[in-house]
Amino acid sequence: MEKNPWVSLHSKTVYDNKWIRVTEDDVINPKGGPGIYGKVHFKNIAIGIIAIDEQQHIWLVGQYRYTLNAYSWEIPEGGCPLSENPLEGAKRELKEETGLVADEWKELFRMHLSNSVSDELAIIYLAAGLIQEEAEPEDTEDLQLQKVSVDQAYEMTETGAITDSISVAAITKLKLMQLQGKLI
Amino acid sequence: MEKNPWVSLHSKTVYDNKWIRVTEDDVINPKGGPGIYGKVHFKNIAIGIIAIDEQQHIWLVGQYRYTLNAYSWEIPEGGCPLSENPLEGAKRELKEETGLVADEWKELFRMHLSNSVSDELAIIYLAAGLIQEEAEPEDTEDLQLQKVSVDQAYEMTETGAITDSISVAAITKLKLMQLQGKLI
Repeated sequence: MEKNPWVSLHSKTVYDNKWIRVTEDDVINPKGGPGIYGKVHFKNIAIGIIAIDEQQHIWLVGQYRYTLNAYSWEIPEGGCPLSENPLEGAKRELKEETGLVADEWKELFRMHLSNSVSDELAIIYLAAGLIQEEAEPEDTEDLQLQKVSVDQAYEMTETGAITDSISVAAITKLKLMQLQGKLI
Repeated sequence: MEKNPWVSLHSKTVYDNKWIRVTEDDVINPKGGPGIYGKVHFKNIAIGIIAIDEQQHIWLVGQYRYTLNAYSWEIPEGGCPLSENPLEGAKRELKEETGLVADEWKELFRMHLSNSVSDELAIIYLAAGLIQEEAEPEDTEDLQLQKVSVDQAYEMTETGAITDSISVAAITKLKLMQLQGKLI
């Protein structure tokens, strides 16, 4: 394995809230020069869920994203504390946002969302065998739902109607799996 | 268009460096309750480049990611200041990291990497018609290069050998385009 070429001399917390902790480290960079590194540590894993029914339609959730000052259509997503089992977190988030309970769960892939600045990890699941129950949105959420085909969802990533990275990656993979005949 | 259901009462900068600015806002959330929102503003667009040769092999760049304390294989990537033309930034980053100069450029897609906390935008390009010149890595970078087939790269996303979100999304899309016969 490749060795860590960075040297961390000193680390201080510059901001902390319920969701993130920002630290600034004094470092020696891989070429031997001095510098600083501002890191954003995430206290939650980002969970994304593709909930797919027997007609191969999937659920999208619409919400206003404060960070972007824009409305965003995404697959069901939520934060799962690092101490919690991610699959349990996925089940909870899917139920909260859509009211869906799934019988079959499969982890599709993992990715680090923004590794130049943060340690945020995303885990993306495929959920099938769906039963519709009551949604239970969190008190900070104001959500809309729609059900679309895999093709419609993929087209939304192509036109820029979906820009969220977890959703773009997951829907592109889903379209690929469909073409490969790997979708149940 | 959907209206912004968030109310921002007050915003203060809690951390600022060359790459990011962190603000904490006092807000009223979509359900009418008081709260805070910690936002990470990015001063650069994240650029990702799939450089593809006539045998449909692509370049990967390996580097140690300080944030993850782990080595990471990725497509060529770099930051492009918000004030700069992203395509010019892409050309510069590709040349710096790999020494490649490309004749044909195509924007593949855009995505927001972590929209619950940041406004970071990524733009992913396909670069073809390649000529090999000298690499010019930045003085903070210690890079390795390898050239792999689209299938090899996609397999690396499936085994977890590639976890960077820009790379995962771009390589999955590339594999899909290849299967659809849409790759040049």
